[in-house]
Amino acid sequence: MGGDHGPSVTLPACRSFLDRHPDAELVLVGQAQALAPAEHWERCQLVHATEVVLMDDPVEIALRKKRDSSMRVAIQQVKRVDGVAAADACISAGNTGALMAVARYLLKTLDGIDRPAIASVMPNQFDGYTTMLDLGANVDCTAEHLLQFALMGSALVAAVDGKPQPTVGLLNIGEEAIKGNEIIKRAGELLRAAGQAGLINFHGNVEGNDIFKGTTDLVVCDGFVGNVALKTAEGLAAMLSNFIKQEFTRSPYAKLAALIAMPVLKHFKQRVDHRRYNGAALLGLRGLVFKSHGSADAYAFENALNRAYDASRNRLLDRVHERILATLQAREGSAGGSGEPREVVGSHQAA
Amino acid sequence: MGGDHGPSVTLPACRSFLDRHPDAELVLVGQAQALAPAEHWERCQLVHATEVVLMDDPVEIALRKKRDSSMRVAIQQVKRVDGVAAADACISAGNTGALMAVARYLLKTLDGIDRPAIASVMPNQFDGYTTMLDLGANVDCTAEHLLQFALMGSALVAAVDGKPQPTVGLLNIGEEAIKGNEIIKRAGELLRAAGQAGLINFHGNVEGNDIFKGTTDLVVCDGFVGNVALKTAEGLAAMLSNFIKQEFTRSPYAKLAALIAMPVLKHFKQRVDHRRYNGAALLGLRGLVFKSHGSADAYAFENALNRAYDASRNRLLDRVHERILATLQAREGSAGGSGEPREVVGSHQAA
Repeated sequence: MGGDHGPSVTLPACRSFLDRHPDAELVLVGQAQALAPAEHWERCQLVHATEVVLMDDPVEIALRKKRDSSMRVAIQQVKRVDGVAAADACISAGNTGALMAVARYLLKTLDGIDRPAIASVMPNQFDGYTTMLDLGANVDCTAEHLLQFALMGSALVAAVDGKPQPTVGLLNIGEEAIKGNEIIKRAGELLRAAGQAGLINFHGNVEGNDIFKGTTDLVVCDGFVGNVALKTAEGLAAMLSNFIKQEFTRSPYAKLAALIAMPVLKHFKQRVDHRRYNGAALLGLRGLVFKSHGSADAYAFENALNRAYDASRNRLLDRVHERILATLQAREGSAGGSGEPREVVGSHQAA
Repeated sequence: MGGDHGPSVTLPACRSFLDRHPDAELVLVGQAQALAPAEHWERCQLVHATEVVLMDDPVEIALRKKRDSSMRVAIQQVKRVDGVAAADACISAGNTGALMAVARYLLKTLDGIDRPAIASVMPNQFDGYTTMLDLGANVDCTAEHLLQFALMGSALVAAVDGKPQPTVGLLNIGEEAIKGNEIIKRAGELLRAAGQAGLINFHGNVEGNDIFKGTTDLVVCDGFVGNVALKTAEGLAAMLSNFIKQEFTRSPYAKLAALIAMPVLKHFKQRVDHRRYNGAALLGLRGLVFKSHGSADAYAFENALNRAYDASRNRLLDRVHERILATLQAREGSAGGSGEPREVVGSHQAA
């Protein structure tokens, strides 16, 4: 029901997704009338919900008032009761703040995770993706949170991009370890120790331009910085795309040039098409939840479905959990010796 | 002497600058041999310095060891003794960290300014500029620092871009006043109060994409976030520019299309040419210091000279000082009544 366009986008995307994945099953959650077109689809179950969380509804409304919203009922589908859930992953194009709050309330966080984070990908110069988190769920992060993001993000890249040991960069304002504020410096120590303990593949500090250089598979940052970086990139891309359009329509000659350059420009456009990498993961919850961009069209929304499908097939939830448990165990092991549970990973380094 | 190319870039830029500004005088500071080509230039004075701060010299070296560096001697030229200085502004393409540290040490900060900040401009969709600060001088800022940045940045835009009451945006992760971390929320209150007291023209919160949308003339943020945003934008621009080059050389047809589209692509390139807006201002010091990008060519370096020239002709230093003094006075005025000096600007609002 969510997003700027609702079922007019999500239903065609679901139809196409089912056609392309003969082993996939969908559970569609929403108002009866909206779901009617999907009534006789194979491998598709309809679950009715009477309410809809609006894109501008405050979190409180989604959390306390609309108890039969499609968002809430959809999240409920992935809640495991006695190890079993009705669905493996939940995908929504709705209100991000509400989705995070309701998911956190219904699903709870995994052991060892203080706060869930939002992870998404940006394109890089190798025509690959750089995964980044947190993108806005947490505006104040401790060094410990940043370590948790690194663990969760590594599990995500391993599951979705098939890289077992993704490289991790800590977003900073210089490569040297002495750069940054106190939290970032401390996070650098924790990440370095986790790398030495074999829990992650830590590269070191990276800067904003490294996101697009593809210096590391994963970039870790607090949600404030991540959100500003994401929106700055979106804003620059929109401006440049507008400028190119303006230049190629400025005069009859420019229009002719556009016609001739069309195949080249089209290929360029495809290469940087943000719809191709739609679908952010809400990590750290006891269930898989993915967020599509609200403005997604059917092609973009189908890609969010694909990402959720890959993540669940590749056991993302278990992978996140395993990485967190390994870290907690490393911590306990070293705590026995040092009585300093916080320094875990650090003391492992010396072991 | 500074930058990636040294005098091979700075001297031609200075020559061209002198030719274009018949009323301008230059003081060139550097090693005797390097400055020799400028020996007989009119309106040009040479000041010799035996040492050079290297681009990778630690701040400590620049500050404590190289006491006769061109950087240090150049900054010394703008230091006012009994109200008189040898030069109105200092421009360097050298090591940013060293420049800031030496400038701060030699010139000191203005009354009412805790920390200097680095301000620069980004292009926006109106083919204008959005000024942004801080871009990396301060990795931990209080709300009070962000207010000082807003005051200094407003003075800069007023002096250089001729807008007497530039609009100010506070960089945040949402437009609503309740967004962001505690420091940002508190900064929002201070800026709102300063706006109501007529000290700045406060627009409200802006997001990363607003930099390029040109929503406000000025965007205020802490140096960590500003540096990440700047470098993210630089990285994306570099990647896109590479992709365009690759696409237009991919095949014989693409190369032909490039030839035909050349005038259009050239105009596009000029529009987003970052050399046009080279020259960051170090604000909050008792003297004007401008920083050129280290990789600047002669055209870019000349633009940094132009910005410094405009700033000094338009009394940037006095303007910054006046705005700070007005704020301090507003604060004292209201402090007399309320005994709450911190709430100054806030209580003015009620006055």
